[in-house]
This record gives sequence, C-alpha cells and structure tokens, in this order.
Amino acid sequence: AKSYNITLLPGDGIGPEVISVAKNVLNLAGSIEGIEFKFNEKLMGGAALDATGVPLPEETLTAAKQSDAVLLGAIGGYKWDKNEKHLKPETGLLQLREGLKVFANLRPASVLPQLVDASTLKKEVAEGVDLMVVRELTGGIYFGKPRGFGTDENGNEIGFNTEVYAAYEIDRIARIAFETARKRSGKLCSVDKANVLEASMLWRKRVIAIAAEYPDVELSHMYVDNAAMQLVRNPKQFDTIVTNNIFGDILSDEASMITGSIGMLPSASLSSSGPGLFEPIHGSAPDIAGQDKANPLATILSAAMLLKYGLGEVAAAERIELAVLDALNRGFRTEIGWMQGDGGGSVEVGGYKESCI
Amino acid sequence: AKSYNITLLPGDGIGPEVISVAKNVLNLAGSIEGIEFKFNEKLMGGAALDATGVPLPEETLTAAKQSDAVLLGAIGGYKWDKNEKHLKPETGLLQLREGLKVFANLRPASVLPQLVDASTLKKEVAEGVDLMVVRELTGGIYFGKPRGFGTDENGNEIGFNTEVYAAYEIDRIARIAFETARKRSGKLCSVDKANVLEASMLWRKRVIAIAAEYPDVELSHMYVDNAAMQLVRNPKQFDTIVTNNIFGDILSDEASMITGSIGMLPSASLSSSGPGLFEPIHGSAPDIAGQDKANPLATILSAAMLLKYGLGEVAAAERIELAVLDALNRGFRTEIGWMQGDGGGSVEVGGYKESCI
Ligand SMILES: CC(C)[C@H](C(=O)O)[C@@H](O)C(=O)O
Ligand SMILES: CC(C)[C@H](C(=O)O)[C@@H](O)C(=O)O
Repeated sequence: AKSYNITLLPGDGIGPEVISVAKNVLNLAGSIEGIEFKFNEKLMGGAALDATGVPLPEETLTAAKQSDAVLLGAIGGYKWDKNEKHLKPETGLLQLREGLKVFANLRPASVLPQLVDASTLKKEVAEGVDLMVVRELTGGIYFGKPRGFGTDENGNEIGFNTEVYAAYEIDRIARIAFETARKRSGKLCSVDKANVLEASMLWRKRVIAIAAEYPDVELSHMYVDNAAMQLVRNPKQFDTIVTNNIFGDILSDEASMITGSIGMLPSASLSSSGPGLFEPIHGSAPDIAGQDKANPLATILSAAMLLKYGLGEVAAAERIELAVLDALNRGFRTEIGWMQGDGGGSVEVGGYKESCI
Repeated sequence: AKSYNITLLPGDGIGPEVISVAKNVLNLAGSIEGIEFKFNEKLMGGAALDATGVPLPEETLTAAKQSDAVLLGAIGGYKWDKNEKHLKPETGLLQLREGLKVFANLRPASVLPQLVDASTLKKEVAEGVDLMVVRELTGGIYFGKPRGFGTDENGNEIGFNTEVYAAYEIDRIARIAFETARKRSGKLCSVDKANVLEASMLWRKRVIAIAAEYPDVELSHMYVDNAAMQLVRNPKQFDTIVTNNIFGDILSDEASMITGSIGMLPSASLSSSGPGLFEPIHGSAPDIAGQDKANPLATILSAAMLLKYGLGEVAAAERIELAVLDALNRGFRTEIGWMQGDGGGSVEVGGYKESCI
C-alpha cells in the first residue's frame, strides 16, 4: 500500500475542528483507494505563540519540509492582533510559505448550482462562475526589501515596503498559470498595474514572453482596478487569472465572496519540488470556535487539492469532491447556505478575517 | 457678479463631448446663481501627446495652477497604450495630480433608487448603498522612490517600486476623511494591510492618533482583502472609507461597479490650498467616442463637486444635483440604465478602462 506523511497544522479558532474532520475524510478516501496516511500534528500561529513564544516553531517548519504535504486549518484571533509584527500569527504563515518556497497559490472560486442563491450577485450574474486565481505567493511587496520604518530626507517619520519582482519569479508563476489555463478553458488573464508600476511593467513583459511557449492559451491583460470592477460586473468573463502577491490577496478574496460560499473554498500553494501547503481560504472564526458550527467543506476540499496537486492521487481526490457534491445534493445546508457540522449545528465560517479595533 | 477661472481639460475619447455638456450646465447654473465662469481649454493626455509630444504640457499645468478649479474629461486610448511610460497619457494625469498637490481624492459611490436595477448585486444588497472612498492620491507606491528596473544581487533582472508613507501625509488625508465622515454618518473605516506591510502599520498608527481629534467619529479598521470581500457581501456597512493610493484605486473602482452606474460617478481631488481637480471616474471609452452615446452625467456631477468642494458655491452645486435627479425621475435612461445623450443616442460609458492586448 502507498503511504504518505502529512503534516497537520490545526492552528487557531475553528482550525482544529475543521482539520479533524478533514483528517477523517482523508483516512476514509485513502482506505478505499489503498492509500495510507501518517499524520504528524504540529503547532502553528497563535497556538504556537502561546506554547512556544513564536508563531512558526523551527520544529514545525522542519516537519513540514520533511513531509509529503501540509494541511493547515486557520490561524489568528483577536488575542494576538495587537502583537508586534514578528509575534503575529500571520507572520508565522508568511514564514511557512517562504520556508516551503510555495510560490504558486491556486484559489478556485466557483459557484455550485446548489449554492447559487448564497451569492449577493444576481442569479444570472453568479450562475456558472468558475474561475481560478493563480497568485504569486513568495515575492512582491510581502517579502521585498528594504522595508521598515525610518525618516525621510526632511526628517519625517516614514513606513516603507518594496514591491519587487525578478524575471524568474514572474516566469515560473506564469508557467504555472498557463499550465492551469490549458487544463481549464484555455483562457488566461494577467492582472497588473503596468500603466503606473515598473514592477508591473516587467510582469507584463515576462508574461508576454512566456506566452510564446503556450500558443494554445489565449492571453489577455487587465489593470487591477478594472479587474476589481469586472469581477463584480461579469465574473463569468474570467477563467484563469494570474497576478502578483498583493493583487492576488485582494482579488481572490473578492472572487471568493462573489461565489457567496467562502466556507466552501479551498486553496493549494505549490513549490517547484517540495511539499505543497493546502488550506481553506476562510479565517479562524474565533467567535464560533469549538461550537461545532464551522463548515468543514473548505478544508475537506483543501484535502482533495492536497491529493490531486500535492500527491497526484487523482482518484482519491475525486472521490472526496463527489462526496461533497453528494452531500449538497442531499440537501445538507446551514442557515446561510453552507454545510451543517457533524453535530448538526449551523455554520458560518469566514466571519472572522481580522478584528476591527 | 462673482467670476471664476476654470481650466477645462477635455482629453481623449469621449472626454471632449462630456466636457462640452458639463460646460453648458455650469454656464446655466452660474447664470441663475449670478456666477460667471471663464473657461480656459488646454491639452492633456493623448491629445497633448499628439500635438506636443508630452502628455502634460508645461502650459497646461501652469494654466491649471493659476485657475480656480480644473475640470477633466478623460484620458487614454488604445493608440497610446504601448507608449513608453513617460509618453503614456496616464503619466500626464499623475503629473497633473502631483503638480496640483491634490492629495485627497473623494469618490462617492451611491445607488440611486431610480437606478438600483443597474447593479449586478441583488436589489436588497444594493439599495441604499451610499459610501464615499477617500483615497490618498499623491503618495504611496504611485510616487515612491526608488523605482525602476535593474538587477538584484544575483544578477537577475528586476522591476521595483516603493510603497512609502510619511506620517504627515497620512495625517492630512486622515483629517480630510474624518471631516468627511463627520458631515456624513459619522462612521469611518480605514483600510490597510497592517498585518503584513510596515507602510500600513504606520498608516494605522497615525489614523488612530488623528482619531483623538474627532471623538464624535466612529473609527474602524479593515484589511484590504477583507474590504474587497465586504464591499460585495454587504456594501451598506460602509459609510466613509479612507485608504492609500493603490488600495483606493482598486476599492473605489470596485465600489463604483457595485452601484452599477459607473457612467454616473464623479470625483474630486483636493489640495490644501490650490485649485482642485474634478473628473468623472469612468474612462475615455474610445469605442463610442464622437457618437453622442456617452453619458455626460458623471462629468456633470463632477462639475457639481467642483462648485461645492472647489469653489464653495453650494447653491449652484445643488441646483445641478437636483437637475440630474429630475432628469432621472422623468425617465431618461439608456439601454443599460444610464442617461441618454443630447442626441437621444444610447449610452455606455466606462466600457473602456484600458486595452486588453
Ligand atoms: C493572513 C494574511 C497574511 C494572508 C495574506 O495576506 O496572504 C491572508 O489574507 C491570505 O490571503 O492568505
Ligand atoms: C489612469 C490611472 C493612472 C488612474 C490611477 O490608477 O490612479 C485611474 O485608474 C484612476 O483611478 O484615476
């Protein structure tokens, strides 16, 4: 029998409860397909801060690197929101992405026919939306140097960051995006702000250069402000979107809300050779943690992405995807259009993204 | 009689036709209120590039600086899209904003009851939306240095920009935002990415500091990715939003599309003492230029903002606003919910924001 080592990072808030459901689902799908999983649970985020004083303990990163794939629940909570930067749960997540070199973040956002009413968009606008945001995840303004605080030449207090992309970073994410588009409808839209930013001008130039390797994929370009509008106006015009780290952060969240089913949406973060990182896109929802109200479907679908993109176990992945559709077809729902928890409680995941002080 | 010097910058595409309508409207409102306007028309954008080789001739900037207010139509078009950066119409616009020091960009987005069906959002989500985005306009990554192209320490080709804010820049835009919120519902939401970016951490710190001067305004903070979601989920939760240049670019466009009436939306860009810059938020729509199809309402409402915020001529401004509502109430519409042109043609403004190569 095949066997894989999976690092589980339950994290904070509803993280532990959704991870525990996804673990059961993996075990079940694995037992049918003849796959064995060895799970190794580690501390991460606020839970790690409380126990060890840092948001990503060395031991966690080492275990993650040595495993075949990493499944993360959620991190963060009001409790740690006022921490200094290096002591924030989010910093642990950025260190994990950097440490695993997972530069390619795939965020599907599709409207399932069963859940079309959950969208705030009109039915005719929402139905049939099926897009994939390919977000660059280990570069750009998130990691660029110099960064920090200081004074300008007139002695004014300043805060600053650097948006920087190297050609090779753009090339490799562009290739992932073209490959992704090729497997989907063959349409790729690259989003940038090349009318203003030099980093975006290089982005556009390299994406156009890489396009020569994919003559079968139809490439278009859009400015980020327009993309934010077009996602609201007519999301169906998009198939695969590729963009930088910060624009991808913004647009993938917008796209996920357009589906109305943020408690349903998974993500995959891939490197060129090491283990991938798989996580639901929703937050840690501390307000409902421990109440068996959290919708586990986003984490279950992240486990399916782990099987498909992380381990190449497509049959087991599809088993899980079908089971999710089956549950929806059989009418399991929450008050707001999502899934009931094991205990029959109602579900609202994603209410917590961060605090509003 | 009072008299004002207004610089008109028709620009490109539909710019000239919407400016000419707005000029007539200003003359009419002025004649009733005893105000005389002296209009001075100058070249800007692609029109300036074609005539003079630069997107913002010295003469245009000088005239703008010496006038009481500046009304701009729209700039840009496919023709100049592949120009080098310093020869792009957009660069002229950025130079104009910088030259006039208009650091505060006010972008209202409201759903008029008459036009609620134009939104792609469900009626119950869209109706009653009435928000104002206060965007910082002369700082941040749009203007930060260093910027450009080069090689990193490993010899890789790079493109880079600097996101930088000085405390005084944040303070002054925060004050404008608090004043704006105070005149509206008293709720201000500051949008940043303070969980990742140092420039945003300083932003949040200064906004909190300035809040002490406005104890009557209720301040909240939201991360930009969450704001992009919340605008789709429940735009009515927002009243006044204050944010940096690039986030404001993205969110104000998203907000405008939520109203469904991008051909209706004006904007005002204000400095601390000099003339303000007023412009519709839609683009130059070259595809429909010269066909009397363009909706002039966004420019007419920009002229109203010019009167109100630029000249303090509130009575004349309100006359124009009422006339617009009156026209809508009398049923003037376009195919897609906007205004008919003078010639009775149908209108679709904003289709063009930029080219998709
Ligand atoms: C928590 C935060 C650092 C993170 C990001 O900005 O990347 C989150 O918003 C996400 O999109 O995964
Ligand atoms: C044309 C472009 C430079 C401009 C901007 O990004 O500021 C536009 O999108 C806007 O919002 O006014």
